[in-house]
Amino acid sequence: MSENNLVISIDAMGGDNSPRVVIEGLAIAAKKNPDIRFLLFGKEAQIRATLDNYPQLQRVCEIRNADEVVRNEDKPSSVIRNKNTSMYMAIDAVRKGEAQAVVSAGNTGALMAISKMVLKTIQKIHRPAIVSMMPHINGKYVMLDLGANTECSAINLAEFAMMGDILARCALGIARPRVALLNIGAEEMKGKEEIHKAAQMIRNSHMNIDFIGYIEPHEIPNNKADVIVADGFTGNIALKSIEGTARLVMRMIKNAVKGSFLAKIGLPFMMGVVLRIKKTMDPRLYNGAMFVGLNGLSVKSHGGTDALGFSVAVNNAASLVRQNFVATIRNEIEKIDLDELSQEAIYDLY
Amino acid sequence: MSENNLVISIDAMGGDNSPRVVIEGLAIAAKKNPDIRFLLFGKEAQIRATLDNYPQLQRVCEIRNADEVVRNEDKPSSVIRNKNTSMYMAIDAVRKGEAQAVVSAGNTGALMAISKMVLKTIQKIHRPAIVSMMPHINGKYVMLDLGANTECSAINLAEFAMMGDILARCALGIARPRVALLNIGAEEMKGKEEIHKAAQMIRNSHMNIDFIGYIEPHEIPNNKADVIVADGFTGNIALKSIEGTARLVMRMIKNAVKGSFLAKIGLPFMMGVVLRIKKTMDPRLYNGAMFVGLNGLSVKSHGGTDALGFSVAVNNAASLVRQNFVATIRNEIEKIDLDELSQEAIYDLY
Repeated sequence: MSENNLVISIDAMGGDNSPRVVIEGLAIAAKKNPDIRFLLFGKEAQIRATLDNYPQLQRVCEIRNADEVVRNEDKPSSVIRNKNTSMYMAIDAVRKGEAQAVVSAGNTGALMAISKMVLKTIQKIHRPAIVSMMPHINGKYVMLDLGANTECSAINLAEFAMMGDILARCALGIARPRVALLNIGAEEMKGKEEIHKAAQMIRNSHMNIDFIGYIEPHEIPNNKADVIVADGFTGNIALKSIEGTARLVMRMIKNAVKGSFLAKIGLPFMMGVVLRIKKTMDPRLYNGAMFVGLNGLSVKSHGGTDALGFSVAVNNAASLVRQNFVATIRNEIEKIDLDELSQEAIYDLY
Repeated sequence: MSENNLVISIDAMGGDNSPRVVIEGLAIAAKKNPDIRFLLFGKEAQIRATLDNYPQLQRVCEIRNADEVVRNEDKPSSVIRNKNTSMYMAIDAVRKGEAQAVVSAGNTGALMAISKMVLKTIQKIHRPAIVSMMPHINGKYVMLDLGANTECSAINLAEFAMMGDILARCALGIARPRVALLNIGAEEMKGKEEIHKAAQMIRNSHMNIDFIGYIEPHEIPNNKADVIVADGFTGNIALKSIEGTARLVMRMIKNAVKGSFLAKIGLPFMMGVVLRIKKTMDPRLYNGAMFVGLNGLSVKSHGGTDALGFSVAVNNAASLVRQNFVATIRNEIEKIDLDELSQEAIYDLY
C-alpha cells in the first residue's frame, strides 16, 4: 500500500458490470493521478478477480470486504440504515476521515440519501446540491442544483451560487467564474420572486463572486457564464432538455445520412468532423455529478458508463480534493450571514 | 373585396421591415388559403406601396388606416389603452367579430396584454396560455404554457392540458393526441405538488383526453407525447434550452467542418443532408406562438422572421379558425368543473 495522502473511497459494486468497469476505470484514473490511493468497498473475491490484472493499480488499492450491495431498484428509505452495503461503507470512510471523497456508480437516490445522513450538511449551509459540468461552444460550465431540491428559497440559491463559484475555480480552473441565476428573462422583474430575492441577497452579501445577474437557457451555450444557478426542478428540466435535444439533432443527422446515397459517398471525408463532434459531446467526458454542501465530497458516476467515464468521475473528485473544495466552502460560509440578509429582504417588503 | 367568410386581422406594422415582410407573407399565405380575407391595420400609404405589387392579394385585402405603432421598446402598460395603434385596432377587430383571429409580429408583451384586455379570457377558463409547435424526431408536438403564467395552480395546468389537446387536434390533425405533464421523473411522487394535483384532477375530470402521465424533457424528442403541459416558467426554460442546444450542435458542426480540409472536400456530397436537416429544424416552419384561452385567437409571429415565416403564422391561425378552435374550448370547459375537482383535491389532503 502506498503512502499517498489523497485517498478516494470507491463503491466497487455500483453501476452496470461492476466491479469490472469500476476497476478498469480506476486503472485509467491511477495513471493520470499517481498521487491517489483508493479504498475499494465490495465483494472481495469479485474485486480481486479483476484487480489482479492491474498490478500497478493494486499497489495503490486497499480492499475492504462488504457483503451487501444496494440495488438500483432499492428505495433509499429501505437501504439508508444498512451499514453493511458497499455504498454505505464507502461513504462512511469519508466520515471517518479515511478518505476525502467517495465515488459510486450505484443507485442515485440511495447515494444522495446516505451521503446526506452520514456526512451531514456543512454547518450554516441550508441545503446540499447536485452539480455537473457541461459543454458550451468553447469550454465547460457548471450547473446546479440538478435535482436535490425541488423547491428552493432565495438563501438556497445564494448558497448554490457560492458553492458553484468555488467548484468552477477548483474543477474548471477558472480564476474568477462568472456566476448567473437561470431565469426566463434578463430584466430585473422577470421570473420568480425567489430568483429576484436571491439576486438581491448575492449582491448585498460579502460573497466575493463575479455575479452577472440572470441568464436565459438559450444563452448558456454561448459561453456567457461559468456557473448557472437554479432550483433543482428548473435545473433538472434544463439539463434534460439540453441532453435530449443534443441527441435529437445527432440522430436527425444520422438518419439523413443513412437515407442519402450521395452523403454515404461523402461520409469518409467527414469522419474527422464526426469524431471531433463526438468527442466534444461525449457524455463520458462530463460524467460525475457532484453532491456538494456536505462534510466530504460524494460523486455519482453514471451507472451505464464505461471505464473511461468512471475515470473522469474519479478525476473530478481528485481535483476538488486537491483544491480543498470542502474546506473552502466552510471558510466562505463563515464570512457571510445569509440568514441576516434574508431578514433584511423581508423587512424590505414592508 | 372577396366574399370569403374566414377573416384574419393583421397588424401590418409589427416586426422588422414591416409592412413589407408582412405583406409578402400574406401573399404566400393567400395562395395557400384562397378562402381567407385579410383586414390590414397600419399606415395606409406604406401598406399600399407594397400591396400594389400583389394584385391577387389585393383582392382579398381591406386596409384600415392606423396612425400609431407599438414599438418594441414600449412597455405594455404604456400602450395598452392607446386605441389608435395598428396592434390595438387589429385585435379589436376580433372583438367586434369582423375577424376570427389576429396575427402580429410586434411587441410580444403588448400583444399579450392588449389581447387579454380586449378579447377577455373565456368564461370558466382561469388563465390563457402561450402555445407553440415544435419538431420531434418524426413530426411535431405542441407545448404550453411558454411564459404567460410564471406560477400555475393545478387547475391552470389541467386547463392547459385540455386546450393543448384541442390545439393538437386542430393544428396538427392528430385524432387523439397523447397529453403529458412535464416533470423531472416518471414516478407518481416526483416533482412538484401542483403537478401531482393536476394529474389527479385530469384523471378525475370528464375531460375526454388521452392523458399519459408525466414526461421528462429528454423524452420529448422521441415522439412520446403530442401535447406537453407545464407552467409558464418551466415551459419557457425547456423551450429556450431546446432552442439553444439545437443551435449549439449545428454551430459546433459548422465550426468543425470549417476547420477540416478533408471535410470541405466531402461537403458537396453532404449538401442534401444539410438542406434536409435545415428544413426540419427551420425555425420559420414553427413560427407563430398562439395565445389561447381568449374569446378569439391571437397569434404572435417572430419579429425577425421573413415572409415565409409570417405566412406560417397566418396558416396556423387559419387552421385553428377553420376547426372552430375557440368554440371547441368554450364547449369543453362547460362540460367539466375543475373548481369542484380542486375542492375535492383539498379534501383529499385531510
